[in-house]
Amino acid sequence: MTNLTDQQSLDIKAAREAVQPTRRTVSKGLEDILYEAIPVLDHGFIRVIDYMGDDGAVVQAARVSYGRGTKKVSEDRGLIHYLLRHWHTTPFEMAEIKLHVKLPIFVARQWIRHRMANVNEYSARYSILDREFYIPSPENLAAQSVQNRQGRGEVVGTEEAERVLRVLRDDSQQSYDHYLDLLNQDDTGRQIRDEERGLARELARMNLSLNFYTQWYWKTDLHNLMNFLRLRADPHAQYEIRAYAQVMLDILKKWVPHTYEAFREHRLESAIFSGEAIKALRRMLAGERVEHADTKMSKREWDEFVRTLQIS
Amino acid sequence: MTNLTDQQSLDIKAAREAVQPTRRTVSKGLEDILYEAIPVLDHGFIRVIDYMGDDGAVVQAARVSYGRGTKKVSEDRGLIHYLLRHWHTTPFEMAEIKLHVKLPIFVARQWIRHRMANVNEYSARYSILDREFYIPSPENLAAQSVQNRQGRGEVVGTEEAERVLRVLRDDSQQSYDHYLDLLNQDDTGRQIRDEERGLARELARMNLSLNFYTQWYWKTDLHNLMNFLRLRADPHAQYEIRAYAQVMLDILKKWVPHTYEAFREHRLESAIFSGEAIKALRRMLAGERVEHADTKMSKREWDEFVRTLQIS
Amino acid sequence: MTNLTDQQSLDIKAAREAVQPTRRTVSKGLEDILYEAIPVLDHGFIRVIDYMGDDGAVVQAARVSYGRGTKKVSEDRGLIHYLLRHWHTTPFEMAEIKLHVKLPIFVARQWIRHRMANVNEYSARYSILDREFYIPSPENLAAQSVQNRQGRGEVVGTEEAERVLRVLRDDSQQSYDHYLDLLNQDDTGRQIRDEERGLARELARMNLSLNFYTQWYWKTDLHNLMNFLRLRADPHAQYEIRAYAQVMLDILKKWVPHTYEAFREHRLESAIFSGEAIKALRRMLAGERVEHADTKMSKREWDEFVRTLQIS
Amino acid sequence: MTNLTDQQSLDIKAAREAVQPTRRTVSKGLEDILYEAIPVLDHGFIRVIDYMGDDGAVVQAARVSYGRGTKKVSEDRGLIHYLLRHWHTTPFEMAEIKLHVKLPIFVARQWIRHRMANVNEYSARYSILDREFYIPSPENLAAQSVQNRQGRGEVVGTEEAERVLRVLRDDSQQSYDHYLDLLNQDDTGRQIRDEERGLARELARMNLSLNFYTQWYWKTDLHNLMNFLRLRADPHAQYEIRAYAQVMLDILKKWVPHTYEAFREHRLESAIFSGEAIKALRRMLAGERVEHADTKMSKREWDEFVRTLQIS
Repeated sequence: MTNLTDQQSLDIKAAREAVQPTRRTVSKGLEDILYEAIPVLDHGFIRVIDYMGDDGAVVQAARVSYGRGTKKVSEDRGLIHYLLRHWHTTPFEMAEIKLHVKLPIFVARQWIRHRMANVNEYSARYSILDREFYIPSPENLAAQSVQNRQGRGEVVGTEEAERVLRVLRDDSQQSYDHYLDLLNQDDTGRQIRDEERGLARELARMNLSLNFYTQWYWKTDLHNLMNFLRLRADPHAQYEIRAYAQVMLDILKKWVPHTYEAFREHRLESAIFSGEAIKALRRMLAGERVEHADTKMSKREWDEFVRTLQIS
Repeated sequence: MTNLTDQQSLDIKAAREAVQPTRRTVSKGLEDILYEAIPVLDHGFIRVIDYMGDDGAVVQAARVSYGRGTKKVSEDRGLIHYLLRHWHTTPFEMAEIKLHVKLPIFVARQWIRHRMANVNEYSARYSILDREFYIPSPENLAAQSVQNRQGRGEVVGTEEAERVLRVLRDDSQQSYDHYLDLLNQDDTGRQIRDEERGLARELARMNLSLNFYTQWYWKTDLHNLMNFLRLRADPHAQYEIRAYAQVMLDILKKWVPHTYEAFREHRLESAIFSGEAIKALRRMLAGERVEHADTKMSKREWDEFVRTLQIS
Repeated sequence: MTNLTDQQSLDIKAAREAVQPTRRTVSKGLEDILYEAIPVLDHGFIRVIDYMGDDGAVVQAARVSYGRGTKKVSEDRGLIHYLLRHWHTTPFEMAEIKLHVKLPIFVARQWIRHRMANVNEYSARYSILDREFYIPSPENLAAQSVQNRQGRGEVVGTEEAERVLRVLRDDSQQSYDHYLDLLNQDDTGRQIRDEERGLARELARMNLSLNFYTQWYWKTDLHNLMNFLRLRADPHAQYEIRAYAQVMLDILKKWVPHTYEAFREHRLESAIFSGEAIKALRRMLAGERVEHADTKMSKREWDEFVRTLQIS
Repeated sequence: MTNLTDQQSLDIKAAREAVQPTRRTVSKGLEDILYEAIPVLDHGFIRVIDYMGDDGAVVQAARVSYGRGTKKVSEDRGLIHYLLRHWHTTPFEMAEIKLHVKLPIFVARQWIRHRMANVNEYSARYSILDREFYIPSPENLAAQSVQNRQGRGEVVGTEEAERVLRVLRDDSQQSYDHYLDLLNQDDTGRQIRDEERGLARELARMNLSLNFYTQWYWKTDLHNLMNFLRLRADPHAQYEIRAYAQVMLDILKKWVPHTYEAFREHRLESAIFSGEAIKALRRMLAGERVEHADTKMSKREWDEFVRTLQIS
């Protein structure tokens, strides 16, 4: 499913089998999955390539300690919750993770907007991309939302879905066929027209569409990983990048269980209430009945306020 | 050529006409071209939207002065050369520029790798892209280089060029036709099929190819602008991004003439010699005849060394 | 009070008087105070040296528009609130400000932790610092807090305050006397001992204490300025840096009134409620009486929860 | 010499003894010294706390490979030299190192200017600093340079050195005595005056001088570590920070031997020649006799040019 070649599978297997002793902090959860390709979408994957530190690295840095820096589990857990709740974010910058990701170009374009990370991308100036493109599954084919200009509405009907998928698939195949033609080579890498050289790779690639897969090494620290997940695991994020964020949440859980728990509690499941929202809350808790018109919140903010508090 | 709509031209004209007094440093060179669309490639442009500081801001910061911080022109010029030559880069971070750029997506993908900048890109999740794609002019259609895996070789022949351009043009048109079809609208924005809603914009866009134009606001400081130009105005950069860098070099010259001059002298026209290269140089200056085999330089480094020094 | 020399005052006056026309966005509020030294603490100041953009630059970037990008004031204001509330922070990176700040070294050490800014500091390797050190006013002399290891408790008594201030003042004077002695010069810059050269400046400075004043040029964007203010205008921040943040809040208000209002509403006066806090809120709004023991919040979080909602 | 307490030594010993298996890349050179305190100056140290990757991580990222990514040693070495020589710096961002550093505050103030790193510093708002301050050894006591405003000249004479050291030592001791007095505690942590609480720690610390030791956890990637070393291992850097850079160079050598070698060759021992310098070189190599007056180089640049090439 992740389309690994035999050679790639062998490389991964070999890397997994080479075990050595270390004095560093070891994360059991990540060692289990190290180097393995976790499938995402139809041809994508995430592989954990390396990591530095774990929950202990966070408390060790917060305490600027000489040893491992960890005390009793309950104290460490409490400290991590406290740090995250109060936005003391620098200790979370002390743990680091490196991923190998295969992803459609339009997802890569959203992803790269997170600048606090290190990236090495597979170069289509230098190499030739594979015939691999993303085609959504029918249940992810949604119409444009009516309420929200930036979002999806209802899933499209079966017949329409078939038509859409046929267009995407045909155009992608043709786009790749012509890419090879411009490069003057066939799928096996053999030259098509003897008499001439192919077009420069850096030019030919412009004929590929945004659903083609690219890949990169991506490295970031725990603080910035959580920033990424706060935005990209959010229901407002586009489904395709959310699929990657979902896998990364699982990785986070295996890597730093206390931080993961605190992140769920104080970021993913939390809500920010504005000054006006807090005033309304105080009145409501004092027994007053408060309507939108009684507040200075915008309609949009009020709707979210009502939804979060599950009041009707 | 830059395909501005009437409304866009009017907006630019109105912005240019609103002149106000300011106590800030004013760059005559940039005021002249402010807001204007300078054409790049077939449909792209660069517009200078705003700027902060000039050559004087560099010396003012280097001197942490109370007034404008500038002394005699010759002293300021000397200081700027000195700072740049010795990689004292922080004073150059004190001037800032903001551009509005329209560029093909594959160029945007290279450009965004420069992380030390602020970016707001036109959103294809939210809005619909125009029927605008980059088609190279025949003299920029080059074959893959034989020596250099990442580069262009000879320009392709006329007949072959015609074939290549036809493929690129036809695929781009079809790619956009189908994009509109997926969105269920025609070029004028009218619905095509009454009975159904179009596909979500965030999905439909994946059918577009990498030569379609996007646009963004891009802001960076003078130091990072020079970093960008050092890499992207270089002959090894891809022609298409170099076309933008070339226009930005002109902008740099209008904005900060002393810094521009120092940048040419100490970056663009400079060369770095390694420890081994310096040893070779010393022997050569002492009258010795030195061949590659007499040094520890790699073949590649030696070739560059010979080329830079124009020795045969 | 800000201890400007005559020459410095003249430099500032001259800079203020040079007015020129510009096509750029002009902030009336900042032009009024441009270059002026706004006093902070006993000898410090903040001066606005330059700026780029205003509220309009935020909406212009959010809309990637061709003209000024602003529409009706109410729409612009709504957009700014929306962006800030939803943490769409990149448009706020499109406005920039540059300050000249004079501040005690121990404040500078906290300040510099905000890395997303550009800094040029007065060099004590190169130049000689002035006899200027910070002495708190008696009402800011607080005892160590008993509840909070990182904070101040009650103001110290008059007699004790006098003793403390005498120690600080005497040590600072002596520290500076010896600094000059090591440099072999007196307050007027004249050599004390003819026969010898003074100690290198980069060494002599180590004898100065952390309350001595330094100064720097500091430049950041609107987004990062708000990040700074969110942390440093907070009651938990040390009084001395808060004094600077307070002045910067006034500057923010003059510069970008809509953003300032949204910042107050959605950052300064807002509160984050964790998943558990929201569960408790829902139960309370449904009429249930909820005690700390009924929740999974830590004692500390519960106390803040109660305080924010003003429930007893 | 590094003044570790018994508890600290035990903590370090315990951390070193806990060895576990890992699938990650292991650097033999760093494992040997992991956690150990390497002395710097009179009371400072550097401890390697953690690391991620090695030379192999650089080539793995440059090749975006599935396995370890390394080929033959000679190819890997060649690639690393090539990448460094051509400023392809992103692969070097893929290896990371974390240090625990104890250093004088005036050194910390220079160090922190390198923003591309993560820092957690020991908090003097929260905790009490130890009676540890830096006193230079006599051979590092230099007079102010006459040629260079930012630098040291000759070493001061024995008698004068004794006087200087006495001033520094006495003032530091008194500074700390009064710090404790303000805190109302003695060296053992016991209260001095029963009737009153001590001054808040965040205030009392301002009486300490800049030679007192602080400590922090500092983490950066290989690319930024080399940037730091290029500037701080340079002869123009202040001796005290150079002492740390020197130890870090040894660490670099143990960690990534190929990168270290390439760094020496293409950074530390390299020189940049400006456009004018290259023109001069070409003429000299063609047999012409070139004087300063025959070029457009500044006097300063010419002097460096002559020194680098060892021509008289």
